[in-house]
Amino acid sequence: MTLTVDLNADMGESFGPWRMGDDTSLLDIVTSANIACGFHAGDADVMMKTMRLAVQKGVGIGAHPGYADLQGFGRHRMQVPHATLQNQVRYQIGAAQAMARAAGGQVRHLKLHGALANTAAEDFELATALYDAALSVAPEIAIMVLAATEQQAAAQALGCRFVCEIFADRAYNDDATLVDRSIPGAVIHDAGIAGKRITDMVLRRAIVTASGKEIPTRIDTICLHGDTPEAVDIARAVRSELEAAGITVTQFPV
Amino acid sequence: MTLTVDLNADMGESFGPWRMGDDTSLLDIVTSANIACGFHAGDADVMMKTMRLAVQKGVGIGAHPGYADLQGFGRHRMQVPHATLQNQVRYQIGAAQAMARAAGGQVRHLKLHGALANTAAEDFELATALYDAALSVAPEIAIMVLAATEQQAAAQALGCRFVCEIFADRAYNDDATLVDRSIPGAVIHDAGIAGKRITDMVLRRAIVTASGKEIPTRIDTICLHGDTPEAVDIARAVRSELEAAGITVTQFPV
Amino acid sequence: MTLTVDLNADMGESFGPWRMGDDTSLLDIVTSANIACGFHAGDADVMMKTMRLAVQKGVGIGAHPGYADLQGFGRHRMQVPHATLQNQVRYQIGAAQAMARAAGGQVRHLKLHGALANTAAEDFELATALYDAALSVAPEIAIMVLAATEQQAAAQALGCRFVCEIFADRAYNDDATLVDRSIPGAVIHDAGIAGKRITDMVLRRAIVTASGKEIPTRIDTICLHGDTPEAVDIARAVRSELEAAGITVTQFPV
Amino acid sequence: MTLTVDLNADMGESFGPWRMGDDTSLLDIVTSANIACGFHAGDADVMMKTMRLAVQKGVGIGAHPGYADLQGFGRHRMQVPHATLQNQVRYQIGAAQAMARAAGGQVRHLKLHGALANTAAEDFELATALYDAALSVAPEIAIMVLAATEQQAAAQALGCRFVCEIFADRAYNDDATLVDRSIPGAVIHDAGIAGKRITDMVLRRAIVTASGKEIPTRIDTICLHGDTPEAVDIARAVRSELEAAGITVTQFPV
Repeated sequence: MTLTVDLNADMGESFGPWRMGDDTSLLDIVTSANIACGFHAGDADVMMKTMRLAVQKGVGIGAHPGYADLQGFGRHRMQVPHATLQNQVRYQIGAAQAMARAAGGQVRHLKLHGALANTAAEDFELATALYDAALSVAPEIAIMVLAATEQQAAAQALGCRFVCEIFADRAYNDDATLVDRSIPGAVIHDAGIAGKRITDMVLRRAIVTASGKEIPTRIDTICLHGDTPEAVDIARAVRSELEAAGITVTQFPV
Repeated sequence: MTLTVDLNADMGESFGPWRMGDDTSLLDIVTSANIACGFHAGDADVMMKTMRLAVQKGVGIGAHPGYADLQGFGRHRMQVPHATLQNQVRYQIGAAQAMARAAGGQVRHLKLHGALANTAAEDFELATALYDAALSVAPEIAIMVLAATEQQAAAQALGCRFVCEIFADRAYNDDATLVDRSIPGAVIHDAGIAGKRITDMVLRRAIVTASGKEIPTRIDTICLHGDTPEAVDIARAVRSELEAAGITVTQFPV
Repeated sequence: MTLTVDLNADMGESFGPWRMGDDTSLLDIVTSANIACGFHAGDADVMMKTMRLAVQKGVGIGAHPGYADLQGFGRHRMQVPHATLQNQVRYQIGAAQAMARAAGGQVRHLKLHGALANTAAEDFELATALYDAALSVAPEIAIMVLAATEQQAAAQALGCRFVCEIFADRAYNDDATLVDRSIPGAVIHDAGIAGKRITDMVLRRAIVTASGKEIPTRIDTICLHGDTPEAVDIARAVRSELEAAGITVTQFPV
Repeated sequence: MTLTVDLNADMGESFGPWRMGDDTSLLDIVTSANIACGFHAGDADVMMKTMRLAVQKGVGIGAHPGYADLQGFGRHRMQVPHATLQNQVRYQIGAAQAMARAAGGQVRHLKLHGALANTAAEDFELATALYDAALSVAPEIAIMVLAATEQQAAAQALGCRFVCEIFADRAYNDDATLVDRSIPGAVIHDAGIAGKRITDMVLRRAIVTASGKEIPTRIDTICLHGDTPEAVDIARAVRSELEAAGITVTQFPV
């Protein structure tokens, strides 16, 4: 049986006159795109343009909702009531579905952004509330969860379709959390190392931590970053290494 | 054959902590609700609350997109490129569809708001572009147009399903445009007069202008206002008069 | 020697087409107005209108900055870096100073709003950072602090001019914190009780807690609320009771 | 007597996580910076950072207000009432004054941005209203006007201090308006040509049009653009050519 894995990246993060990331290059490498929905980044024009490109290149479209915080890029935690966040997730998914439809595609998955994702990774109740809200609007989509976090636990408890992701360029602690960015080695900048490391994890079906510990994990998709200078290089290296190891890079089924 | 007519009103125009209109009372009178989509009024919480009420009361849900101008309530014309306005209309309809679905209903129609509606009533190309964009997202909905304007011409040219509306409380000029608000008598504040006048027009299947001229017009729905002190009284009077004249007040079919 | 006290209330909390509070009535009762600066409420038009009224009625103008969260009315805590919050406070004070100048007045004090105020009441470092930022823009103003909180501690440590406020309609715990709103009696709705209670505290120069405990406190100003139905009645009663007890209601000096 | 001229450029146009322009390089070349005030671009953090840099490099600070239209970068005309635009200009100048004060500097001039500037260049009443509003907040500043437009006429009629600007990289029609961008040669991309052309105009004290016509004009400052790839090269070339011709590049007095 062939091993397969999906590659995903955040996209559509430009806004008005401001550009962010190299979506065009990344869309040649990834198989799924997490597209910002206008609350923390993106606007209706950027969404449409990005979705058209994704459809054209056969890349799967995901809604990528975040906090309503444009200046902070959705990176600041906000103590907003869960019911409000549920409605904001519904709103953003609906907008994404409309743009996808007009672009000739459809939303295949949901992935939370930034501080909203980080909070949901620690807070089972919030993750459950947000995924439940998403499914009330789009019952057919897959939920993309951070592997081995409360996000995964919530999706499992809801009994919905979900896919597990690990990071291509972040080191893991022995409890499966990410090494804090302030610690040297937390972020992997070397494309060669990133490619080999991830291929190793996919083959082992496990997160391999910074200390070398192996945490058995379902790995459906690998998160690539799009907003750093080395982003495209790392993305290419990861894809090459996976394919060289006989792993098929392809969209997860929904 | 029975004469039927739909009654519509703008709703969901509260925002955050600020209340506007008496949606609960109006939802007992109208058969269609034009619900703001968060660009000129409304937010995800207000949309969800309003749509739940509409579903509960059997009132048809319409998406009511406007310019991205919260402070100005979408009442100021903005020279935004048509392609951007198209994407903003798609975005807002998609958001409305998501909220309607989560509320157990569905979007049945589209009506443009404020200055965007006024511009489209004069500008065939803009109206066509916006309706076309709406249908690219929601081909099954009806377009609610201002009778005898470029809005109606655009919907006819597109060959899509549409319904024609006239105003319950506004006087008409002989060219079917509205009498300017600065002219005495432009706005009808007397519930009794409004009810009789509208019933007369529905029975005659014509706009009756301030000078008494009759302009044959398809009349599918009557627009009631929700944001004035006398709004609910006028709405009740219009409905009573129509029913007293044997006209059935009911949702237009889609 | 005559006892004097200032009365303050939050104002200018309308936004665009949405009204909030009865500023015109309150401005006949209070001596200081805390005017929203456009981030959590208010806009440039509302600020100008409110400041003109305040100048006309001889009421002192305060800048009332909050989180950049219009939909949430600044009531949700946000984990924004202190440096960013400092700049946002500077920005809002500057805007308020401009409007005050154009209205023929000047900003006399600063009071933090909502969740930003609540966080600063518990967090000495945040309070210090924000007050320091405010004084970098407006060294001549007084800082209005919640008596017996970290806000007061921060203002004292900075050595700046400050005035201490207590609430007219909120019950106090024995540690000088407010009784949680979920507990019966936390909010005082009876105008007569509110008036007598506050007069008693001003005369005793102490917070009197729900249990009857007396906490000696500097009391320079009393916070009246403007957004409840009984707000204006309570405000009038508080002023009457204070004056009946021989206390002079007047602006604090700056 | 020595000829002197000021060089100005728009700056502080980044927003949240999004970068725009090369402010650091430009601040080594220009003598005046027009700094966005958060309505069409910029935010409180960007303003503070840009103003600190300007103060450090001895560059004069200007407030650069625009329409409240972040996504459109203030480039779309909006039919907003003059009274509202006046208040929005006051608000933005006040914010800029606060940030400048905290940065150790002060606002020396006002320049309108984008579509607001274009409209004011054609509309004497609007220009007069906006400049009057600006002076109600900051009577001590100079108004930077587009030479030979209604902006200049309005400033002259108000009797206020003003400085006239011409563009370094735009061709002029014989009526002193700018050649439309759709016409070849409308924008000058060659640094050498731009430098010589501008130096010639400053020496002749006249706009020299595309056809070679000379329009005698007061020239106090030259507008350099910051948002194109060749921007910094053109800026350097303009400054070099001016200095080589014995013209002193220095801030206009206020």
